Amino acid sequence: MVESIEEGVKDLKEGDYVIPIFNGECGECRVCKKEKSNLCERYHVDLMKRVMVSDGGTRFSTTTTKDGGSSKSQPIYHFLNTSTFTEYTVLDSACIVKIDPNAPLKHMSLLSCGVSTGVGAVWNIAKVKEGTTTAVFGLGSVGLTVAEGARARGASRIIGVDANPSKFEKGTLMGVTDFINPKNLTKPTHKMIQEITGGGVDYSFECTGNVDVLREAFLSTHAGWGSKVLVGIYPTPRTLPLHPMELFDGRTITGSVFGGFKPKSQLPNFAQQCMKGIVKLDPFITNELPFEKINDAFQLLRDGKSLRYLLQISKFLKK
Amino acid sequence: MVESIEEGVKDLKEGDYVIPIFNGECGECRVCKKEKSNLCERYHVDLMKRVMVSDGGTRFSTTTTKDGGSSKSQPIYHFLNTSTFTEYTVLDSACIVKIDPNAPLKHMSLLSCGVSTGVGAVWNIAKVKEGTTTAVFGLGSVGLTVAEGARARGASRIIGVDANPSKFEKGTLMGVTDFINPKNLTKPTHKMIQEITGGGVDYSFECTGNVDVLREAFLSTHAGWGSKVLVGIYPTPRTLPLHPMELFDGRTITGSVFGGFKPKSQLPNFAQQCMKGIVKLDPFITNELPFEKINDAFQLLRDGKSLRYLLQISKFLKK
Repeated sequence: MVESIEEGVKDLKEGDYVIPIFNGECGECRVCKKEKSNLCERYHVDLMKRVMVSDGGTRFSTTTTKDGGSSKSQPIYHFLNTSTFTEYTVLDSACIVKIDPNAPLKHMSLLSCGVSTGVGAVWNIAKVKEGTTTAVFGLGSVGLTVAEGARARGASRIIGVDANPSKFEKGTLMGVTDFINPKNLTKPTHKMIQEITGGGVDYSFECTGNVDVLREAFLSTHAGWGSKVLVGIYPTPRTLPLHPMELFDGRTITGSVFGGFKPKSQLPNFAQQCMKGIVKLDPFITNELPFEKINDAFQLLRDGKSLRYLLQISKFLKK
Repeated sequence: MVESIEEGVKDLKEGDYVIPIFNGECGECRVCKKEKSNLCERYHVDLMKRVMVSDGGTRFSTTTTKDGGSSKSQPIYHFLNTSTFTEYTVLDSACIVKIDPNAPLKHMSLLSCGVSTGVGAVWNIAKVKEGTTTAVFGLGSVGLTVAEGARARGASRIIGVDANPSKFEKGTLMGVTDFINPKNLTKPTHKMIQEITGGGVDYSFECTGNVDVLREAFLSTHAGWGSKVLVGIYPTPRTLPLHPMELFDGRTITGSVFGGFKPKSQLPNFAQQCMKGIVKLDPFITNELPFEKINDAFQLLRDGKSLRYLLQISKFLKK
């Protein structure tokens, strides 16, 4: 909830319900004025950015201490435009999206990242159409939102690929129609997918962050029109394990940030669609914990035992 | 010109003017029935295919010779569905496109491969729009047809990149507005292109077949919406020198075969557009030679001294 606004902010007022967005929208730069991209020139995601864009400063600091007579106060730097593991934070208004006050806030928090990233990759980037076939590699939170986005768009077949069979139960809820565990196969996953779909899927989504899986996801699409969208994050020095001639079969690769959503102009409408149940959000919150348990929550995520934990910081999240 | 047809061929008759197509269209397979792809399941380009698709046989053989009493005749295998370095050939009807008898046949021969590949990459694959910016890497015949295709679509800026400055003169004819010789730069080509276009071009086309150039072409497109089309052939064991995270800036890569044209259903209309001068074909024929000079023609192509040589086999090519 907005506690206070600075002079000049016109689209927000005190008391507004809002969600913070790591990939902002200034509305005025060349990219914001184009329909095609959500990578605002001023506020796009930048892991190295440590200060507010508006004035290059910080808003937080450590408590001033007296050290032999001189005062010491260290700045606390910002992260991903939002710095949200705190009860109060300060954001550029470009990184705040106003939400319907009737929306269930605990669900809305999911729209700040993972759900929008996955659903947007399906809706805005791949533009999956009714009756088409898709494959989702990696059924973690983001992969499952991809499946949910494809289900909402009426995909006729959603093939989920994961080495952890416990993911299948949740996957079924999100519309996954076929489950492939690569560990149980004697052939490469893409061969299996080509076989069961008669040549390959129309769209595939890579959500594991593994470049070898990326190759499988690419080859799982149908020659001629298959489209592969990268959704994972790849912490590897390796480059794409694809030969340029493998692109000549007419497959396309593309990436996306935040599902291609322009946050301020498109997310309020997406939130409305979630409120109407077009995209189900409830199954993504596997548990709620007090903020002090944040490390336990991370451990459970790492162990693949949860999708999203809601950490309760303030009374508003109880809503 | 069609000399004779086999029973069952309905769309052709003796005396028709036609061009042979290495990437055929059966009209009946699943891919032919889809709008999106021209990679016919039965007749798509396949370097390893050595026989007619219709019956798996050949139609040519060496002259029968008597060798110690026994007759010897070796089959001559087919290549790329067409086998056209000959006065007469035999083709599956899926690989023949009927052409307006009023069309200048010497120009029409260009539509069988290079011109359609380059122009189609611009029109059908990238779908370049009026007023957009493009970069073409490699100004050989195919690169120049890409430029010509972009010019015909009203691209506002066409940046030609080639290490051979003699290509610029022809390039200007095809609409190239800026010429970059990477040898004269002290920075990577993509940096230069980003500078002069304020962030990068809308579309880039790689026509050199060099994977390092491919990387430059990719990075020359604008983050957020840039689209890169592979048009070159890459005879290298190396994979794409791109990191998966470099795709997260919202750039797209795709390849194409024969410019995405469905030959039988789309090329006759393209030929009409060429006849109207929407795409200029004449500048691509740099010389005409009798067929016996074929090796000289190849050498001149290798030396970068010509675009397309017309080899005169029969009287029809004189037209």
